[in-house]
Amino acid sequence: MKPITDVRVVKTTESAFIRPFSLIFKQGGNEIKWDLIDSHNGVFVIIYNRTRNTLVCVKQFRPGVYYKSIPECDRPKDGRIDTNKYPPSLGLTVEFCAGIVDKNKALEEIAVDEVREECGYEVKVSDMQKIISCRAALSTAGSIMTFFYTEVTDQMKISEGGGLAHEGEDIEVVEYTIPQIRDIITQSEVLNGSSSFLFGLMWFLTNKIVLNN
Amino acid sequence: MKPITDVRVVKTTESAFIRPFSLIFKQGGNEIKWDLIDSHNGVFVIIYNRTRNTLVCVKQFRPGVYYKSIPECDRPKDGRIDTNKYPPSLGLTVEFCAGIVDKNKALEEIAVDEVREECGYEVKVSDMQKIISCRAALSTAGSIMTFFYTEVTDQMKISEGGGLAHEGEDIEVVEYTIPQIRDIITQSEVLNGSSSFLFGLMWFLTNKIVLNN
Repeated sequence: MKPITDVRVVKTTESAFIRPFSLIFKQGGNEIKWDLIDSHNGVFVIIYNRTRNTLVCVKQFRPGVYYKSIPECDRPKDGRIDTNKYPPSLGLTVEFCAGIVDKNKALEEIAVDEVREECGYEVKVSDMQKIISCRAALSTAGSIMTFFYTEVTDQMKISEGGGLAHEGEDIEVVEYTIPQIRDIITQSEVLNGSSSFLFGLMWFLTNKIVLNN
Repeated sequence: MKPITDVRVVKTTESAFIRPFSLIFKQGGNEIKWDLIDSHNGVFVIIYNRTRNTLVCVKQFRPGVYYKSIPECDRPKDGRIDTNKYPPSLGLTVEFCAGIVDKNKALEEIAVDEVREECGYEVKVSDMQKIISCRAALSTAGSIMTFFYTEVTDQMKISEGGGLAHEGEDIEVVEYTIPQIRDIITQSEVLNGSSSFLFGLMWFLTNKIVLNN
């Protein structure tokens, strides 16, 4: 992953990515205004490498996670962050291969594209097993996230992956063994990953790994 | 729950709740600007009622989930939503008892307060079992969410719960049996709940319910 330097916080009045809008409604006589952001639906792909008995995941730098890793008293509202005191590695997350739904394609096809682009494996659409769809960011967005499961072998590896450089992606592919997954879901530090990741790991252990493996 | 009427979408230029800011950084020579929103850390509480062998959960109307339940072509950018065609029940979610961390209190104490306010059970701080902490909304926020587990009995019920009316909360307490939980995590429709809920249900089934219960 490329080094991250010169981190600073700036105020933003308008954003092309975070576009607030509001829903106004009456609930039992009271008028309520609720602020929301428009956000895309998405897919997650749990990738099991059969050749090596590992889960193929991704690591990337997430600016929000980095910012929130800094104690509040040292978190500037505007200005430079001391990256010697707070190394950018604090913002590295572990996640499933994932993508947003911004194309007029079936969810399975988007999942296949993301597996190729981020992790470098060529998977068939018919090998995407849908697990479940749920909601993300209930209080601000409510977008629909769909989980898939797929299996790969070393023979299906066609590139290094890493994401699309022209889209600013810089993704590291990582693999976890079954004991490592058990450690992740029982760790006592804050996991730099989401509850989607935790759900997917639990689902995998429960449905795909025989007990006491 | 009180009826919801007169739902309309309005544009918002400024929000007291969704405050965008940006992190600017260099990654391998490229300058990147990433827009974020400031959001609170939070707690989730998995509540098991021993008297009735149920999980105590909450239902509430989530404006974003409602809006995203409407097909995109019928989703106004500005204007009224036809609530006959799209009933507000589309926005009802199932969730764990939860709260944001906006007080200078231990997480366990905030969890105890939320169990009392939302579900009406009086629980001791020492009976909050911490499960794990992870991140929420990786791409826009990165706030820290902590999961707790606690057990209650019917004797610990002190009120109806329902949330704090003066904070605009209108929460319905619901209970799920173990077979109902198994149905939720394997359902084929979109779950009107988050991956936090799915993770917590899986964790509960795996760690607290004997196999083949």
